[in-house]
Amino acid sequence: MTADTTAAPFPSDIEIAEAAEITPITTLAQERLGLPADALIPYGHTKAKVDLAHIRSLADQPEGTLILVTAISPTPAGEGKTTTSVGLADALSRIGKKSMVALREPSMGPVFGIKGGAAGGGYAQVVPMTDINLNFTGDFASIAAANNLLSALIDNHIHHGNALGIDPRTITWKRVVDLNDRALRDIVVSLGGVANGFPREDGFDIVVASEVMAIFCLATSLADLKERLGNIVIGYTRDKKPVTARDLKAHGAMTVILRDALAPNLVQTLEHTPAMIHGGPFANIAHGCNSVMATRTALKLADYVVTEAGFGADLGAEKFIDIKCRTSGLRPSAVVVVATIRALKYHGGVALADLKTEDVDALTRGMENLRKHLRNVKDVYGLPPVVAINRFPTDTDAEIAALIELVRAEGARAYEATHFSNGGAGAEALAHGVLEAIEAGEGEMQFVYADELSLAEKAEAIATKVYGAAGVTFDSKAAKRLAQIEADGYSGLPVCMAKTQSSFSTDATRRGAPTGHTVNIREVRLAAGAGFVVMVTGDIMTMPGLPKVPASDHIDIDENGNIVGLS
Amino acid sequence: MTADTTAAPFPSDIEIAEAAEITPITTLAQERLGLPADALIPYGHTKAKVDLAHIRSLADQPEGTLILVTAISPTPAGEGKTTTSVGLADALSRIGKKSMVALREPSMGPVFGIKGGAAGGGYAQVVPMTDINLNFTGDFASIAAANNLLSALIDNHIHHGNALGIDPRTITWKRVVDLNDRALRDIVVSLGGVANGFPREDGFDIVVASEVMAIFCLATSLADLKERLGNIVIGYTRDKKPVTARDLKAHGAMTVILRDALAPNLVQTLEHTPAMIHGGPFANIAHGCNSVMATRTALKLADYVVTEAGFGADLGAEKFIDIKCRTSGLRPSAVVVVATIRALKYHGGVALADLKTEDVDALTRGMENLRKHLRNVKDVYGLPPVVAINRFPTDTDAEIAALIELVRAEGARAYEATHFSNGGAGAEALAHGVLEAIEAGEGEMQFVYADELSLAEKAEAIATKVYGAAGVTFDSKAAKRLAQIEADGYSGLPVCMAKTQSSFSTDATRRGAPTGHTVNIREVRLAAGAGFVVMVTGDIMTMPGLPKVPASDHIDIDENGNIVGLS
Repeated sequence: MTADTTAAPFPSDIEIAEAAEITPITTLAQERLGLPADALIPYGHTKAKVDLAHIRSLADQPEGTLILVTAISPTPAGEGKTTTSVGLADALSRIGKKSMVALREPSMGPVFGIKGGAAGGGYAQVVPMTDINLNFTGDFASIAAANNLLSALIDNHIHHGNALGIDPRTITWKRVVDLNDRALRDIVVSLGGVANGFPREDGFDIVVASEVMAIFCLATSLADLKERLGNIVIGYTRDKKPVTARDLKAHGAMTVILRDALAPNLVQTLEHTPAMIHGGPFANIAHGCNSVMATRTALKLADYVVTEAGFGADLGAEKFIDIKCRTSGLRPSAVVVVATIRALKYHGGVALADLKTEDVDALTRGMENLRKHLRNVKDVYGLPPVVAINRFPTDTDAEIAALIELVRAEGARAYEATHFSNGGAGAEALAHGVLEAIEAGEGEMQFVYADELSLAEKAEAIATKVYGAAGVTFDSKAAKRLAQIEADGYSGLPVCMAKTQSSFSTDATRRGAPTGHTVNIREVRLAAGAGFVVMVTGDIMTMPGLPKVPASDHIDIDENGNIVGLS
Repeated sequence: MTADTTAAPFPSDIEIAEAAEITPITTLAQERLGLPADALIPYGHTKAKVDLAHIRSLADQPEGTLILVTAISPTPAGEGKTTTSVGLADALSRIGKKSMVALREPSMGPVFGIKGGAAGGGYAQVVPMTDINLNFTGDFASIAAANNLLSALIDNHIHHGNALGIDPRTITWKRVVDLNDRALRDIVVSLGGVANGFPREDGFDIVVASEVMAIFCLATSLADLKERLGNIVIGYTRDKKPVTARDLKAHGAMTVILRDALAPNLVQTLEHTPAMIHGGPFANIAHGCNSVMATRTALKLADYVVTEAGFGADLGAEKFIDIKCRTSGLRPSAVVVVATIRALKYHGGVALADLKTEDVDALTRGMENLRKHLRNVKDVYGLPPVVAINRFPTDTDAEIAALIELVRAEGARAYEATHFSNGGAGAEALAHGVLEAIEAGEGEMQFVYADELSLAEKAEAIATKVYGAAGVTFDSKAAKRLAQIEADGYSGLPVCMAKTQSSFSTDATRRGAPTGHTVNIREVRLAAGAGFVVMVTGDIMTMPGLPKVPASDHIDIDENGNIVGLS
């Protein structure tokens, strides 16, 4: 995520990143975290994994304080959640706190597609930027290999006699690749005759949409990883019994493939704050947060850990709490809600082209979106919200002042932050505000729903409490699938809502904070390994395509081996 | 490759490997090769890449002596080419030479399929064995990503208007995955409607069969890599003009993906001889050797470098010379031909089940296979052959003595070697023999054919000179394709024969050294980026399947995170 910078000579993200002086990772780990060299598995000189054995040795250490960064409902104007996470962690470091940031790993698909890199932006980035955006430490490749081994084993099992009696029509397990490749969305495999198996419809998702990715990010140990992988339901038998990866004896080998990847990756921000970048599940059909391994390890190593959830606070923060925190025992102490003047004016009905014009009225109207998120954080999640106003050059002082006032009227703190341009120094006020909120002990995290509710009731709880909806309805096919999942014994799982991030409703065009709408569930998917049931409210694209002029057209290597064109 | 060990308590490869004491790679690089720490890019503590900038700084250094290890025509009895390469390098180290071994990286497909690991065997292995056999340093994943980015860009180009006028029916560029997955051999992509592109037939190969792999292994620098990637021909326009990766603007981004991977991987043998393990193209539709980057870097760092070619000396050594040496300028000084008593008896007509019984007559008959290889090495390739008799427990002294005598009658050296059981000590006689042959300066490498010959004449030269064939014929489709390739200006390229490895003929059942046979070319493929034209003589499987009980069934992780079941 990069903020729009209209000031002419501001350098690009990659220019800033490439100019950075990066501390050798072993030095950083030793000096900032007290990690000895043998606790690290180096990947080059500026990246390392923290050894799982060392992590196990930290089990009895006290944990630091967790700060969750989320946002208003995303708009095309951009909010800057990752930059704020990085800037806040840097600011905490600047004011003398032992802090870390824990973020998701970027996918290569968007890097070569439309979005470009994803490691913060401006002077609030993690480095080495090109490495993080490309193959990094190989985690995504390992996740793809584990996912695809299971796929191969499924078709191989059917080919060699299908002893388990798998009904090929019911297989929901897809292959994956870490690219945007629309041609692979809907395919037919096993053509070409007897030697190639039984033809069936299939498809590829992008790696970040794989259930293996979600499992990887929720696993608390290798043993837990293997257990969860074994629980994956790939489809059903002819008599409608779930078939698991364990039934196919795939989970051991899948765990072996993922063994090295499970150790979390340590890098640093431009200002040398240690950063964990590990795992990156989709935020719609999955929970959208970096790995539990990374967050927990960071909490063992630092006093304050800033982490990020996907999309806005209705989706990302809710899943962070109801899925990641529920399964792992993690508990944040404060929630930073990132907002921009531009985005709030957009929520207030202003067109994209007009966002540069001062408009306090529109801002005030758009505040209804932020207001609902703040009330959710406070009343539904039980946590103190702190608003980070990620300042853009076109924002006026009047607008900033008006927004701070509007937030204060909600009983919450708000701070202007300029980390994109100024690094950690630009987020110091925010950092102090977050610490104040934490020290005030203004709440205790609570789940949106109890484990004991039925899956439909859980969806209903989220829709009514968090989205402001009147209720939930189910398409008949979805209702049938839900009944099957409940009958198979999965009703105790949390739900994972796959809803547009652009609105509290399921209609992406309804900005602000609509109420009284109905959330219709079109499809229900079981992620038995990850441990949640996905409720799909719209069209969810799990394999993006490339644009007419992909970013890859301009990504190149110069004579000295330097990468150019990576945004 | 592991030799058959009938002696009961001999430990398994993984037991030996896991018990090994591995020198930290930075220490090894410093002590054995004089490489400073900043010349290495560590991947954990026992693996590293040698930095490309450091390699460039070695350009003016003299190069060591290159020793090629090849074999008789492979049999189901096993020959042990990789173990011999490792054992010979260890033996050279033992007798005071600064030596290295350069080998291919194993593919994960066979690891989970039928073959198990591929990092030598017994006491002649490279370590860390599990790492090398699994994700290693991520090279194969990067190669897959580069390959598949090109695939995505092809379909994306067609989807967005097909400005280049690509005829989708002519696309030969396939997607790849590093797994054995027969379901992906023949597929139809882009189903599901307008948003998903234009449906067409497609398929996946295993990564090692990708032309990107062949290119990667022949590239001499990042610039050369990019040039070769740009040259890839992915298909044709409606008016039959070749369409390249350069036309699709894919080569820059592909090079960026491969940038880190191109640096060769440094590990070690069980006896701490430095080993380069880098790249691993198929030996049928590609040239089957580790990367030029690895071999050349090893030659800059060591006085003696042992490297391995694929299959037998008719295929692997020929391609090593006519493709790898031709393009890179590398020149071996001696050729080790690995043979076993068992395999030669098999070539002499003995059934697999009877190979344990002494049979000097059969051995003498089977010698015709070794004899033809020896004469090829000496007379066609112009190099001194040295026979390594990789001893098995069931071989008798009479058989060994008879074979040494038979080889001497050919004017070549032969040595019994027991490196599988005894490590480098078991190959010292072989090492001395190789050094003698090198010091005698008994030849100078020559190509089998000149660049100026037509592609058909090149195939003819290989078939008649190396295979002992009467001549070459072409299926009409192959002849037509060949004419197109010549017309498009690719006649100056070397040819890459895809023939069964089991016989000098194209009939896998004809053991020994058949003569007068005809080599029929069924298919011709252009690998314009790799820089060769493949002549396919039979069915070439570029995507293996899994057996009924895949190795993955038994590969698992124990409570301590140790991998079990990897053979």
